[in-house]
Amino acid sequence: MAHEMITSVQNPLVKRLHQLLDRKGREEQGRFLVEGAHLVQEALKSGAEVTTILYDHDRDMDPACRRALESHPLDVHVVAASSAVLGKLSETKSPQGIVAEVKKTAADWRTWLDQKGSAVGDLLVLFLDEIQDPGNLGTILRTAEAAAIDAVVLGKGSVDVYNGKVVRATMGALFRLPVFTRSLSETASEWRADGGRLLVSSLQKESVSYDEADYSKRTAIVIGNEGRGVSQELMSEADQFVHIPICGQAESLNAAVAAGIFVFEAQRKRKDRLR
Amino acid sequence: MAHEMITSVQNPLVKRLHQLLDRKGREEQGRFLVEGAHLVQEALKSGAEVTTILYDHDRDMDPACRRALESHPLDVHVVAASSAVLGKLSETKSPQGIVAEVKKTAADWRTWLDQKGSAVGDLLVLFLDEIQDPGNLGTILRTAEAAAIDAVVLGKGSVDVYNGKVVRATMGALFRLPVFTRSLSETASEWRADGGRLLVSSLQKESVSYDEADYSKRTAIVIGNEGRGVSQELMSEADQFVHIPICGQAESLNAAVAAGIFVFEAQRKRKDRLR
Repeated sequence: MAHEMITSVQNPLVKRLHQLLDRKGREEQGRFLVEGAHLVQEALKSGAEVTTILYDHDRDMDPACRRALESHPLDVHVVAASSAVLGKLSETKSPQGIVAEVKKTAADWRTWLDQKGSAVGDLLVLFLDEIQDPGNLGTILRTAEAAAIDAVVLGKGSVDVYNGKVVRATMGALFRLPVFTRSLSETASEWRADGGRLLVSSLQKESVSYDEADYSKRTAIVIGNEGRGVSQELMSEADQFVHIPICGQAESLNAAVAAGIFVFEAQRKRKDRLR
Repeated sequence: MAHEMITSVQNPLVKRLHQLLDRKGREEQGRFLVEGAHLVQEALKSGAEVTTILYDHDRDMDPACRRALESHPLDVHVVAASSAVLGKLSETKSPQGIVAEVKKTAADWRTWLDQKGSAVGDLLVLFLDEIQDPGNLGTILRTAEAAAIDAVVLGKGSVDVYNGKVVRATMGALFRLPVFTRSLSETASEWRADGGRLLVSSLQKESVSYDEADYSKRTAIVIGNEGRGVSQELMSEADQFVHIPICGQAESLNAAVAAGIFVFEAQRKRKDRLR
């Protein structure tokens, strides 16, 4: 399978891939890195555009990855490399012995929305306003997939969705869930112009409890930044403010936990309506 | 306030406190470290046994900490130190300029239970079976406090609750929420002998959806290890298996998100009963 073996961290391919560990490199090249057998396998199975795989020559390639590779429709450049090279491309304490280069999806939010039309019933989506912590963002995407959320839109000031920590925390959801990065205030006003509702997570006075909110129509739930909450611009677009009542001296919930409680409650209420 | 100034990382107090960065040191000394103005303030306000505070002489002490210190009932040993000393005792990328040494609580689960008696209605507690990730454990404790969970019991194989990352992720909940570390299988069988119910998070065939479970009586919800789930020993004590239905190709939820969905649903159902 491998036609070459790379042992030098100075090799041009290794240097190019190493740039993908930084947001700048990812933006310039339109690609990102995926580390570890489980995630590489998820990328291949999902049909993501995997362009290159480097695996540790001393450890050979994970058999499940090998099988996923064989049924992958694209021509993947597979390269054996030394442990030093894999170490150079790893962000984890113990390099996992396999890393894949994947093209970012070119999916466009408006195109996706138009394709969805009104045929699939009422969409339920998440708008994430400047989530900063990579673990939080990855966990929210993992949770969104598990709750059958239709799509996630990230505002411009968020941590990069292709950051290695985000990708790992998604546990593969990134390859299966439609995720778009674009201006949230534009997205929100278009969404409402199209007849969608905007539920904004906030402790405003007129905010209703998450279990009393109306999730029945085409709905976007807005989750705010870990420290500052939702921006004023998005607040002004809210159809309803919603919150999770908290007790004691706790000041707030973790953003990923709050997102999880909102989306599962939304789906629970939608399911109840169908009974 | 400060009667001395430490500039050497070789100072015996600094060396002793540095040992608290490791579990072994924390177990030997029965104390742990708390870093950053917000957490030190939470520790002081909660009445935790703060024994020593070191603050960065160049940055002076945070005013809110100073006020909290003034109304703290105990005699705290307050020491000014150099940035190098604070750096030595810090686990974060940018040392926060203040660190406190706190005694572990001596609270005992049986004593706590006896004090609670049946006077406060039906207890709702969490049993955590070998949670490994410090961020997950801290976030679960933060969520448990916010959901007014009465107490949390950690099984023996869990990450140390006094680990710095755990303490930081609790956002202060650790100082206010009763948390006990002890054998979970013993705790579970005693709990049931006392008339408590055990709801075990699991995908077993007979498992009911989290929104159809019965949380009405004295209830413990068991959350399992991130990879393996709940141990066989605890499974055999289950009164009911519960799960959160997930969609698509997602395999599981993050442990802290799952715990959050369970505890808020439990409280929602209890509130509904009271209406």
